[in-house]
Amino acid sequence: MRPVAIIGIGKTNFGAFPDRDLRSLAVEAGEKCLADAHVSPSQVEAYYLGNFAGPSFVGQNHLAPYIAGAMGITGVPCTRFEAACASSGSAFYHAVSSVAAGLNDVVLVAGVEKMTSQTTPKVTEILAGAGDTCGEVRAGATFPALFAMIARRHMYQYGTTREQMAAVAVKNHENGAKNPQAHMRKIITMEQALKGKPISEPLTVYDCSLISDGAAAVLIAPLERAAEFTGRPVKVMGIAQTSDYVALDQKDDITTFRAVVAAGQKAYKMAGVTPKDIQFAELHDCFTIAEILATEDLGFVKKGEGGPYALAGCTRLTGPLPINTSGGLKSKGHPVGATGVGQICDLVMQLRGDAGERQLARHSLCLAQNLGGSGATAVVTILGAL
Amino acid sequence: MRPVAIIGIGKTNFGAFPDRDLRSLAVEAGEKCLADAHVSPSQVEAYYLGNFAGPSFVGQNHLAPYIAGAMGITGVPCTRFEAACASSGSAFYHAVSSVAAGLNDVVLVAGVEKMTSQTTPKVTEILAGAGDTCGEVRAGATFPALFAMIARRHMYQYGTTREQMAAVAVKNHENGAKNPQAHMRKIITMEQALKGKPISEPLTVYDCSLISDGAAAVLIAPLERAAEFTGRPVKVMGIAQTSDYVALDQKDDITTFRAVVAAGQKAYKMAGVTPKDIQFAELHDCFTIAEILATEDLGFVKKGEGGPYALAGCTRLTGPLPINTSGGLKSKGHPVGATGVGQICDLVMQLRGDAGERQLARHSLCLAQNLGGSGATAVVTILGAL
Repeated sequence: MRPVAIIGIGKTNFGAFPDRDLRSLAVEAGEKCLADAHVSPSQVEAYYLGNFAGPSFVGQNHLAPYIAGAMGITGVPCTRFEAACASSGSAFYHAVSSVAAGLNDVVLVAGVEKMTSQTTPKVTEILAGAGDTCGEVRAGATFPALFAMIARRHMYQYGTTREQMAAVAVKNHENGAKNPQAHMRKIITMEQALKGKPISEPLTVYDCSLISDGAAAVLIAPLERAAEFTGRPVKVMGIAQTSDYVALDQKDDITTFRAVVAAGQKAYKMAGVTPKDIQFAELHDCFTIAEILATEDLGFVKKGEGGPYALAGCTRLTGPLPINTSGGLKSKGHPVGATGVGQICDLVMQLRGDAGERQLARHSLCLAQNLGGSGATAVVTILGAL
Repeated sequence: MRPVAIIGIGKTNFGAFPDRDLRSLAVEAGEKCLADAHVSPSQVEAYYLGNFAGPSFVGQNHLAPYIAGAMGITGVPCTRFEAACASSGSAFYHAVSSVAAGLNDVVLVAGVEKMTSQTTPKVTEILAGAGDTCGEVRAGATFPALFAMIARRHMYQYGTTREQMAAVAVKNHENGAKNPQAHMRKIITMEQALKGKPISEPLTVYDCSLISDGAAAVLIAPLERAAEFTGRPVKVMGIAQTSDYVALDQKDDITTFRAVVAAGQKAYKMAGVTPKDIQFAELHDCFTIAEILATEDLGFVKKGEGGPYALAGCTRLTGPLPINTSGGLKSKGHPVGATGVGQICDLVMQLRGDAGERQLARHSLCLAQNLGGSGATAVVTILGAL
């Protein structure tokens, strides 16, 4: 397999954009990305698009050639990948694999979602389609309820507290306030987070990520060709996608996501690194408890220690392992299909030293974790500066 | 790249199954396929699923791990591919590419759609999502209207007649009547076909494919390992996926699908064969005119000669180039996401000599063409017996 490099990135702002349609968001991200790498549409050999539920949110399907055509990309494979909230993580995994294997050279990978044109109850219903609609969803459990059960069990089993979860929210809002592309640039206090409106106890509105519109894109190529396009390529050191059962009741233990553990182990092995080597990470904080689980499942701390680790400030910009310097799904926003590739863009900005106010001092090795549903899909990527 | 073999196939019947849910159909096809190849779920290294609109038809998304988990397949990449009516053709393309490139060995590829739980107007609306909803669909053009425009132009430009289109329907019903797994096993006469209820003139109900439920699956592996699993492997000799603009008004000429022409040329080149070498084919007859276009675009006849070729009986079981011996989308049924992999299963049955009443005498080299929307995605596959 050939080493693969990221040679360009492009993102729209994440937010609520009533005047923008889905296609225009994806085209903006894609064109920014091509410009970043000085690549023309005719050089793109394949278009891999992550999108969770465009047909349900805006009625448009067949999105890959629809968006690619608007950028002048035709005559190449254009495919949409769907794996719930890990849709563009999955697109990225398949695209990287195709370049590594020598199937393609220059591939544009993107993610997009346009959610805010629907009411919140309708969005919740569409998102619930990523759970088991014949089981848990029919019983009334939407995603906040599923993650509330996970949180309750984690609290019971490991003594995790509401303050520890709130610390994740406070930290992610603090980071997002410094990110000019974030959806909600608002600092919140621990007191506010704890007094948030209950959504599904113990989760308050401050434990839940945002409903957003947005798109992100990255351009990849064989590392050996990277210098043709950019002076600052980033290397994909390890990547893995794996799966588990969809329904919570099929899992032996709901305080750990088996798929995240397995994808992490594979990605570490491929990269030849250990969790201790990772300097910073973008983790899938669809709910605050999910960031705590990921911190544990990826081996950054032992099981049960994710909450105290967050409360102690270890994952802040100034801590030993900054997590979600972008603001995460909580503050940057969570346009579902765009999230996986958006994480990659955020990591690349740090690796390049382009993260502005959020820039870290140590920025040469990092990790992204993208989650689908309540853990049925996981994609873990490890990136390194060159 | 390594040669790739099909080592197992499995299909449900296609039809209207009010008592079956989407997952049970996909599981039935997958389990039949694994049994056909004597492979256990734990041997499957990846699950590639084609599905067009499960979330819109039945509310369930995140389908790949949802279905895989029900078959006992976890801990591996499980991904849904969407490319309109070419969704499972696209899944097959990506899966074959991954095995050819050495990324995977044993991969299960499937397609599924459950359509009949919705009313016909609702199905038509969901299908329209594969067109340009901001343009042609907003103007009122659903797929029968789009293909009616294509038919009208083909009639104007090449003198194609309603009798020639009806000949496609009569032939496909004749073949489907011999297929125990077909949705509508009913012989129709030319007179009936011509007097069918108008849907979008010049197309009558007999020019349109069926709204069906169904699933299909194939198992692939490197050719060098095929003998471990089966005594009668089939070789994937050539395969290509390509794209074009979604909207009809963006195409220079609507009597030809550029993506089909390009995918065909790539697949022929990869296989080292010409159209003359192909003994039989499964072509994407979502409408009768689409089969005529495909016959021309794939080089079996010159442009404009597809209609006379069909009317002369050349594509019947007894003709020089039997097309859609399964009955095609017209009679076998068109559960959109299952169609691409379903075509592959039908070809493998012929190659193995297992096609019963429809069995052809010459059955060593054949082609499948799977179309997305009004030509924005095309997948062409060439298979050979060993």
